[in-house]
Amino acid sequence: MNDVNNWKQLAEKEAGSDVHTPRMRDGIPIKPLYTSADTAGTTESMPGFAPFARGIRASMYRGRPWTVRQYAGFSTAEESNAFYRENLRLGQKGLSVAFDLPTHRGYDSDHERVVGDVGKAGVAIDSVEDMKILFDGIPLGDMSVSMTMNGAVIPTLAFYVVAGEEQGVPANKLTGTIQNDILKEFMVRNTYIYPPTPSMRIVGDIISYTAEHMPRFNSISISGYHMGEAGATVVQELAYTIADGLAYVDAALARGLELDAFAPRLSFFFGIGMNFFAEIAKLRAARVLWAEAMAERGATDPRSLMLRTHCQTSGVSLTEQDPWNNIVRTTLEGLAATLGGTQSLHTNSFDEAIALPTPFSARIARNTQLVLQHETGIADVVDPLGGSYYVESLTHEIAEAARVLIAEVHALGGMPEAIAAGLPKARIEETAARRQAAFERGDDVVVGVNKYVAESTETPEVLTIDNARVREAQIARLGAVRSARDDAAVADALQKLEQAAQTDGNLLAAAVVCARQRATLGEISEAMAQVYGRYVASARPIAGVYGEARRGDDDFARAQSQVADFARAQGRQPRILVAKLGQDGHDRGARLISSSFADMGFHVDVGALFATPAELVRRAIDGDVHAIGVSSQAAGHTTLMPQLIDLLRAEGAEDIVVVLGGVIPKEDYAAMHAAGVSAIFGPATNICDAACDILDEITKRQAGEQAQLF
Amino acid sequence: MNDVNNWKQLAEKEAGSDVHTPRMRDGIPIKPLYTSADTAGTTESMPGFAPFARGIRASMYRGRPWTVRQYAGFSTAEESNAFYRENLRLGQKGLSVAFDLPTHRGYDSDHERVVGDVGKAGVAIDSVEDMKILFDGIPLGDMSVSMTMNGAVIPTLAFYVVAGEEQGVPANKLTGTIQNDILKEFMVRNTYIYPPTPSMRIVGDIISYTAEHMPRFNSISISGYHMGEAGATVVQELAYTIADGLAYVDAALARGLELDAFAPRLSFFFGIGMNFFAEIAKLRAARVLWAEAMAERGATDPRSLMLRTHCQTSGVSLTEQDPWNNIVRTTLEGLAATLGGTQSLHTNSFDEAIALPTPFSARIARNTQLVLQHETGIADVVDPLGGSYYVESLTHEIAEAARVLIAEVHALGGMPEAIAAGLPKARIEETAARRQAAFERGDDVVVGVNKYVAESTETPEVLTIDNARVREAQIARLGAVRSARDDAAVADALQKLEQAAQTDGNLLAAAVVCARQRATLGEISEAMAQVYGRYVASARPIAGVYGEARRGDDDFARAQSQVADFARAQGRQPRILVAKLGQDGHDRGARLISSSFADMGFHVDVGALFATPAELVRRAIDGDVHAIGVSSQAAGHTTLMPQLIDLLRAEGAEDIVVVLGGVIPKEDYAAMHAAGVSAIFGPATNICDAACDILDEITKRQAGEQAQLF
Repeated sequence: MNDVNNWKQLAEKEAGSDVHTPRMRDGIPIKPLYTSADTAGTTESMPGFAPFARGIRASMYRGRPWTVRQYAGFSTAEESNAFYRENLRLGQKGLSVAFDLPTHRGYDSDHERVVGDVGKAGVAIDSVEDMKILFDGIPLGDMSVSMTMNGAVIPTLAFYVVAGEEQGVPANKLTGTIQNDILKEFMVRNTYIYPPTPSMRIVGDIISYTAEHMPRFNSISISGYHMGEAGATVVQELAYTIADGLAYVDAALARGLELDAFAPRLSFFFGIGMNFFAEIAKLRAARVLWAEAMAERGATDPRSLMLRTHCQTSGVSLTEQDPWNNIVRTTLEGLAATLGGTQSLHTNSFDEAIALPTPFSARIARNTQLVLQHETGIADVVDPLGGSYYVESLTHEIAEAARVLIAEVHALGGMPEAIAAGLPKARIEETAARRQAAFERGDDVVVGVNKYVAESTETPEVLTIDNARVREAQIARLGAVRSARDDAAVADALQKLEQAAQTDGNLLAAAVVCARQRATLGEISEAMAQVYGRYVASARPIAGVYGEARRGDDDFARAQSQVADFARAQGRQPRILVAKLGQDGHDRGARLISSSFADMGFHVDVGALFATPAELVRRAIDGDVHAIGVSSQAAGHTTLMPQLIDLLRAEGAEDIVVVLGGVIPKEDYAAMHAAGVSAIFGPATNICDAACDILDEITKRQAGEQAQLF
Repeated sequence: MNDVNNWKQLAEKEAGSDVHTPRMRDGIPIKPLYTSADTAGTTESMPGFAPFARGIRASMYRGRPWTVRQYAGFSTAEESNAFYRENLRLGQKGLSVAFDLPTHRGYDSDHERVVGDVGKAGVAIDSVEDMKILFDGIPLGDMSVSMTMNGAVIPTLAFYVVAGEEQGVPANKLTGTIQNDILKEFMVRNTYIYPPTPSMRIVGDIISYTAEHMPRFNSISISGYHMGEAGATVVQELAYTIADGLAYVDAALARGLELDAFAPRLSFFFGIGMNFFAEIAKLRAARVLWAEAMAERGATDPRSLMLRTHCQTSGVSLTEQDPWNNIVRTTLEGLAATLGGTQSLHTNSFDEAIALPTPFSARIARNTQLVLQHETGIADVVDPLGGSYYVESLTHEIAEAARVLIAEVHALGGMPEAIAAGLPKARIEETAARRQAAFERGDDVVVGVNKYVAESTETPEVLTIDNARVREAQIARLGAVRSARDDAAVADALQKLEQAAQTDGNLLAAAVVCARQRATLGEISEAMAQVYGRYVASARPIAGVYGEARRGDDDFARAQSQVADFARAQGRQPRILVAKLGQDGHDRGARLISSSFADMGFHVDVGALFATPAELVRRAIDGDVHAIGVSSQAAGHTTLMPQLIDLLRAEGAEDIVVVLGGVIPKEDYAAMHAAGVSAIFGPATNICDAACDILDEITKRQAGEQAQLF
């Protein structure tokens, strides 16, 4: 009675024969039922033993629960320090520092290019003095500190080492992690400074330095998170992250380092989205793939085989609409991360699709993890889903699919070569465009956004940063630091750093000397830029994917025909400059708009990353565009958009329509409109509608000018 | 390398030998690791086939997701109707009606005993006219409607049948569920009217009537939920619910009904608390136990073997402190219910530990389910945890432990006999007392309450019901109904109902005739009360459990010694009357206070349920108590507490200290204090502290009187 054939018949009788058609979820075919037949061929492994499908430690959370490690930082070092101390008092166990964009990009707070960005999306750190304030009263010998830093990783880590020294904690006692994963920056996140080759050398220098001097510190956090945020499927995130990791390993081996000397300090960072079981299986599969690859490379220390990971719930799964639903989403994602066996976890605040977290939203986010740890019993048992026919089978499927992508990367010569060829970025952008189309078609339901929309909702209070005030405070401290230091010693240390960059001296070792002398982050970064230059990216957005996915849709047809009408009437296609402003490199939105607008028939000019308002105005005028679309994810718009529009007016180009998209707090709308922004598009915008709105605005603007002429 | 012994050694090396000590969670020993060895002896079953561990349907949610069925009702039929219609528009799929306490207890809204309760914790329904308004615009032929009704189940179901008729929907087309589980009312919830024997006959009449006339309607919802709320462990809830179900089956069989004629329309209702995997396993075990028991009784229709269930997330797991954390809790509980294979689900609103849900909190609660259904993929696969070594093993363990409790019940002759002997109630109260002690000792962490307490929190807006206004509206409609009807026909129908009660006529059939004639709920209930009388409970609270669990604690010792000092000084023990007021029968809190105060040395007088203020004052004066502690769960306090204190004053008994505990919205505090309430104790009160506070208040009050004398 109980065999699978009987089941098949009954299921079909209940729900029709469609019930047996695999359901595609995030590119993975999902059957309606998994049974012991699906796991018959697999070998059971024990937690704590390779290949670690069931966890890297034998005792897992029964021995010690995962670390509650919330990523945070904003404004000045003083304010972030106070925030950290309060969070630690309320149950957080580890720190994770968010730096502001100028710090990421190697600029001091007084640099002319960063006027809109200081202290906005993280804490501003200009020198070791800021770093010391950041950790004031937090004993660095006891606290594990994670730092999300990739571009200006050399000065930042140098400041951290010196801040430790000056607290009396030698480098060999420091615990924590530096992100230091530059490959994914070139792929999706864009927070790089130097070109790929010197960037990879920096990673190698840090792996080498930490292996020698900081044995308890994770030299890198190989990060898939930002791929997921950029739109990657679970399998893409997994495969490209493992491939990135192997690139670092192979680079370090090529420098002559011993595998077991550095491999135990490699760590990972994955995002956890809403695809509940796939996310769990992803973490399990990641451990298996890594253990296999390290064994292949001859690792003998069991710790070299262990994929240790931090996880963060998905930012891109959060919605601006009815943001309270995000508490539900983050809870489910947090649970998936822990059922997948993460070592530490950040749970997002529910208001992060709107603005920076407040103490209130940060508390709920932290409590989400504390409830999981203390109230649910999920930490009682190691790998509680182990043996589940579905989870075990999915783990296997995801690992297999990732192996295919990894093999494809290796066929190109490895991840640096694949990135140079644009492969992973194109793959991820394709997925992002398909996701957007599926969302707009309603195939993918997002509760409260494209279905079950509330008529009104209770808006939470949001945090706003007085960027000008933070910048003034930072400039004052920079002045104090510069006037109190030994200028000759600083110049000498920077000179030696530059020499190291030209030769093969260890850059971090040289930067530590600079940091002790109070060289600033900008100075240390610039010393290396003198040798390496600054990298300028030039990847074209993908074409055709969005249009293909929306083929036959009314919305899309309407937008296409409106574009065609416009082109007929005006004698040329509508031209739009899609751009980022300031140091914010999150370009998923901008690239999606670029490719989808092109698919609708726009002529799209893709602005360079990290532009100033003046640079953007110049490009818009030179390109004779009808509209500029700025995408803002990190709050720089409040300062930069008024500047942009003032400059357009000063150039007599007020006929160019300016629109804004991305994460824009409702509080900013009035100021943006007052500054001359024609329309604002939030994260759940239907792109076809947005395109039509922009065309209408252009036409209206032209008619207004006509009217003024006559 | 990979065998369990190696794992044991490694786990011990990592975390010490304690790691292998089973961790007790809710009375179940949990090992640190489960492997294939733990499921080696079990047989794999297929979903849709007995014993249904993997679900009662072969296709489960892949065929059709669970029904989003939110329990709601408040104020008048008009207001509840508007609320339902909005919820259905926003994604809810089925209705679940919450009736107010007077309706539950068989009183019309104009009855003198229900002044404080009309429309408070549910909707007031006095006649078929109210029921018709409640479902206005909601086609009862298409909508499945669940009604939580046990006491006044005969008139309520009669009104529903007639409301259907008058919408043009015959009884045989109605779908839905009536709770109709009176045994658990005698055990934990107290919303009964008649004594046990006629109450069981009423259940039988409904099973019989629906089997004949309403083939698509669930004749009963055998409910463990309220046991869980009263403090039961997962195993207790499971065992006593199954045992209740068997009692109804056996009663129906004893009436000569054919098992397969009624068994397919029996349904269940479980609570889902925070013990994540145990709750999942509970639902799986419940299906297995029921299928076994029905097979034993000779069921041949596969549907007779299927345990179909509704679930609700746990109200008692919600906290008044930092209520936003409740969104996290409810999400996890909702997920557990669906991973366990529930057929329908209610997710609680986050503010339910404070007050009635608002449209805002109700929306988040509903969205919690919609996010689970649409965004997570958990509905893609039937029983996704099937095969998990832990979940399968836990399912088996929980079923085994429940079998022991069920056997114990059967040894007493069955559930009615076990309830008469007080067994299940005592067991559950023991658990509740132990839970309270574990919470107060900090062994059980509740985030934001006894650990990680926020200094301040953002208080949500709460819903308050203008009870007087609702009562007036109901009285007006009652007047209209009474003046428009044919009095002789009403009297005749009620007379026939009374005769049916005296003989073996079907009570529901007779009540349907009364309902057609516009007899009221109070009149129909009273006609039966003429024959059966009203039940008065008299169970003593358990003794010693709380004191035993807190033995050696400082808090408890301090309270004991303060009681002893008081007794020495006054020549007698402190005396407290612990009471409920009005029609609110939720007495977990009152019973817990009674037993724990007695353990501290108080002389405790336990008030009768359903008292009026005047009755309580009389009892307090007769008993010469120092204090009255009123426990309120259903908002009756706003009307009844001022009356109580006024009456005490009128009797010259203002020396009696009055305190209030339970679910008391912060908004009510000022009014309660102004009325003369000395102290208010919320759900997370440390009972020892409360006892000391009350003693201090008594002493202060006496000193004040002394001072006035001199």
